[in-house]
Amino acid sequence: MPGSTQNPVPKTSAGRFFEDFHLGDVIVHATPRTVTAGDVSLYTALYGPRFAVQSSNAFAQAIGYPTAPVDDLLVFHIVFGKTVPDVSVNAVANLGYADGRFLKPVFPGDTLSTTSEVIGLKQTSAGDAGIVYVRSIGRNQHGEIVLSYARWVLVRKRTPGTPAHAEQVPELPKAVLPEELGEGCPPLDLSAYDDALAGSRFRWGDYAPGERIDHVDGMTVEEAEHQIATRLYQNTAKVHFDGHGARSTRFGKRLIYGGHVISLARALSFNGLGNAFHIAALNGGRHVAPLFAGDTVFAWSEVLEVAELPGREDVGALRLRLVATKNRPCADHPLKTGEGYDPDVILDLDYWALLPR
Amino acid sequence: MPGSTQNPVPKTSAGRFFEDFHLGDVIVHATPRTVTAGDVSLYTALYGPRFAVQSSNAFAQAIGYPTAPVDDLLVFHIVFGKTVPDVSVNAVANLGYADGRFLKPVFPGDTLSTTSEVIGLKQTSAGDAGIVYVRSIGRNQHGEIVLSYARWVLVRKRTPGTPAHAEQVPELPKAVLPEELGEGCPPLDLSAYDDALAGSRFRWGDYAPGERIDHVDGMTVEEAEHQIATRLYQNTAKVHFDGHGARSTRFGKRLIYGGHVISLARALSFNGLGNAFHIAALNGGRHVAPLFAGDTVFAWSEVLEVAELPGREDVGALRLRLVATKNRPCADHPLKTGEGYDPDVILDLDYWALLPR
Amino acid sequence: MPGSTQNPVPKTSAGRFFEDFHLGDVIVHATPRTVTAGDVSLYTALYGPRFAVQSSNAFAQAIGYPTAPVDDLLVFHIVFGKTVPDVSVNAVANLGYADGRFLKPVFPGDTLSTTSEVIGLKQTSAGDAGIVYVRSIGRNQHGEIVLSYARWVLVRKRTPGTPAHAEQVPELPKAVLPEELGEGCPPLDLSAYDDALAGSRFRWGDYAPGERIDHVDGMTVEEAEHQIATRLYQNTAKVHFDGHGARSTRFGKRLIYGGHVISLARALSFNGLGNAFHIAALNGGRHVAPLFAGDTVFAWSEVLEVAELPGREDVGALRLRLVATKNRPCADHPLKTGEGYDPDVILDLDYWALLPR
Repeated sequence: MPGSTQNPVPKTSAGRFFEDFHLGDVIVHATPRTVTAGDVSLYTALYGPRFAVQSSNAFAQAIGYPTAPVDDLLVFHIVFGKTVPDVSVNAVANLGYADGRFLKPVFPGDTLSTTSEVIGLKQTSAGDAGIVYVRSIGRNQHGEIVLSYARWVLVRKRTPGTPAHAEQVPELPKAVLPEELGEGCPPLDLSAYDDALAGSRFRWGDYAPGERIDHVDGMTVEEAEHQIATRLYQNTAKVHFDGHGARSTRFGKRLIYGGHVISLARALSFNGLGNAFHIAALNGGRHVAPLFAGDTVFAWSEVLEVAELPGREDVGALRLRLVATKNRPCADHPLKTGEGYDPDVILDLDYWALLPR
Repeated sequence: MPGSTQNPVPKTSAGRFFEDFHLGDVIVHATPRTVTAGDVSLYTALYGPRFAVQSSNAFAQAIGYPTAPVDDLLVFHIVFGKTVPDVSVNAVANLGYADGRFLKPVFPGDTLSTTSEVIGLKQTSAGDAGIVYVRSIGRNQHGEIVLSYARWVLVRKRTPGTPAHAEQVPELPKAVLPEELGEGCPPLDLSAYDDALAGSRFRWGDYAPGERIDHVDGMTVEEAEHQIATRLYQNTAKVHFDGHGARSTRFGKRLIYGGHVISLARALSFNGLGNAFHIAALNGGRHVAPLFAGDTVFAWSEVLEVAELPGREDVGALRLRLVATKNRPCADHPLKTGEGYDPDVILDLDYWALLPR
Repeated sequence: MPGSTQNPVPKTSAGRFFEDFHLGDVIVHATPRTVTAGDVSLYTALYGPRFAVQSSNAFAQAIGYPTAPVDDLLVFHIVFGKTVPDVSVNAVANLGYADGRFLKPVFPGDTLSTTSEVIGLKQTSAGDAGIVYVRSIGRNQHGEIVLSYARWVLVRKRTPGTPAHAEQVPELPKAVLPEELGEGCPPLDLSAYDDALAGSRFRWGDYAPGERIDHVDGMTVEEAEHQIATRLYQNTAKVHFDGHGARSTRFGKRLIYGGHVISLARALSFNGLGNAFHIAALNGGRHVAPLFAGDTVFAWSEVLEVAELPGREDVGALRLRLVATKNRPCADHPLKTGEGYDPDVILDLDYWALLPR
């Protein structure tokens, strides 16, 4: 029987507030998503990545993949996008990521869905908001985990002063361990790995801790570009799309999704890290300052660690700090000034990449 | 033999004028179009729809589709786009739609083509233009009708004062009847329909006539976005693309394709109508005011009717009024002011959607 | 063993300077690229081409293709894009193209890679730069040549005054010969070629040398559009992307990739050349003036030659001059004023197209 016109149940979701989260809750996020060659083309068109493994079925198959895998960050954005309506639509700030692991390659045709478990809660001293820690897990259509990561966000309370149901801050590793890195990468036949086609003669062993690499090029971002990207990920955060509402915010304009910056910086990093074809883990990341349309993104990397993968002779890992700036070339590797970040820095990301040995 | 340089036949089409249309003429429109996963990705990236049936092959297959169907409005835009060079390139105005029925799902790989029959003609009292009524039919590569709709446009005469060949105004239904709605939707296995993945716990029976739903979010439109969309549909209407020529029009800038507004409003309507996965029919629609780049679109819906589909227990129909505004949130459901539309309203669309019961 | 922190080898490529090129060198360019239905959709969305052969699998299969081939210019842009980091990243100017032949159709799923041979070198009289002539060859995953063309660019020297290793200017044909044109087009079954679906009743024999065709419509270009296109081709030329750096150049803004203009003009040419479905050869081309975002592109064509293809009754060739302008409709076919080009002209392209007979 149809519902009643009198007092219909409100159909629109306003999203969860801090007091709606309970430790141990598992949220099933909406809209499973089949990733296709169309998504891959758009990803290429939005950022310009040139890693041969993700760009060429022929190259990928030669070294041991069934076909070219989907870019790890495209997987991240799709898995992440699903969490927004449930986790961060009422967030004041994205505070951090940790312990992100890419556990299985994703191929066109795979369908991704996401769940998030509430692993920590801590209210602010002011009592009008609290930090929600979730572990989000992306799975393919076979139920296999392709990505797992922890994230924490500052979420408003619906009713300031409401006490938290419980308080617990999870312990999260500062970095994923090298022995946990190889699962997302099949065994590779390096005899078929062609450095000329890959675009770099530098293998894993050619990098050293402390080495800094300026990625040289700059990429200006337009409103249409970040909106097209963010919708592709079915990320609904209104700050990225509502130019009308944005006029009355402190910035006065739309904010660009932080993941857009990560993908731009990663694509720029090809010049200097052309063989770093697979992101195995995200150790942590901070969006240090906002990016707006019209700004130009530059990037540089520092090699933090060089690690072998236990039992593997085909690939090795580099722990990399990827720093992005706006409107500031990175020949001098800008990062901190005094206590804080250089005002031009917008991203400080710590991740593990795999390279052929 | 090659043609002659002397007086070559003009090769460029200027499109049909009012006196070029004859009652009963059937126009075969150019450029059949294979719809692909690439088109689906672009559609997602341009509007951000989140309906699970169209987003996930796994979800669609579980409930009874062979694979995820193409969004109904993407089908509409492609079928419609082909008619522009033949029907409306010399149109002064798009006056209305009626009796639009989605009769068969479209899947990636299907090739769509369109024919239009002239079903009505009526010249204006001023005698310099006339209304042309056409029924446009979109077919797949098997010749099966996937979409049929009537449309009427005001078209200039080549020679003002030329009499019409005939005059006839077709009778068109105010709304498609519920018994005509189910053809575009296969029988569904509701036991596999997962509300959490679909993103809404509200089924067909939870809605009541008269209910109004504010879809909350706003989406700002950029020139690049509507141009990319409109070209994707191979719609050639120059008002959407020629910024140089637009400077000397009354608006002074490019107009956004009305269908772009429909798709934006429909995508926004997911928040409140997440299970309304299939558009079964377009009863009528008016583009009340133009949209321009830089404007932000908001939307709200009213439930006009709740109808069972004869013989079907799996899905029911909601007749919905979908109203879009520009630069005006819709918490107060803006529509009319006095005699006419509220000046912020840009779209008033009447359609039937199917939902699981 | 990991490399040393002391004096690591610089990992970033600065590209080749004039003295880095040697006659006879063959450069293997990075990043083989699998072309997909996603790329085809983006190409359609960026330019709006309406040629039935490339748009519809059903149409293409009916006349003898295994499936719809990828637009010839999309193939060109992808093959060309790979050469940029190696050939023209330090170029002062793109001087010309010649002897471009499309030798094999490309289909979604094919993987393209590019090599370039240095076929000529000539330093400037000032001694600070030189002209580098390359022949670039695009191959599919079977090693078959799909495209071959010559190009010459003016490249800076790293050290002004360094003498060239050798000097040689290659002889390049003014136009590809008609007997060399058919390889990229399979034998066609014209009985299945439907002019109504193709969008033009004018076949090869209806065109005459000297005929001029105004393509009427204009298309305004946005920054987001040309950036999305140019990244899709993995073309890294910084002048197209770095708005920050561009502020200190003589133009003060980003330059649009010349190939973007070619594709826009070609798509506009459908109105007047709807059956000219295949580009068989690029005889030569000049980017006469730069295009910037916000400009509107118009185009017109002149039939230069009408040629039979030896041994083929299915298709014939038109040699066409395709002229594009900015912010200037082409009803009066603008080209030269006095000695030079009309200041509104931006492209003067000479190519061979095939049409059904």
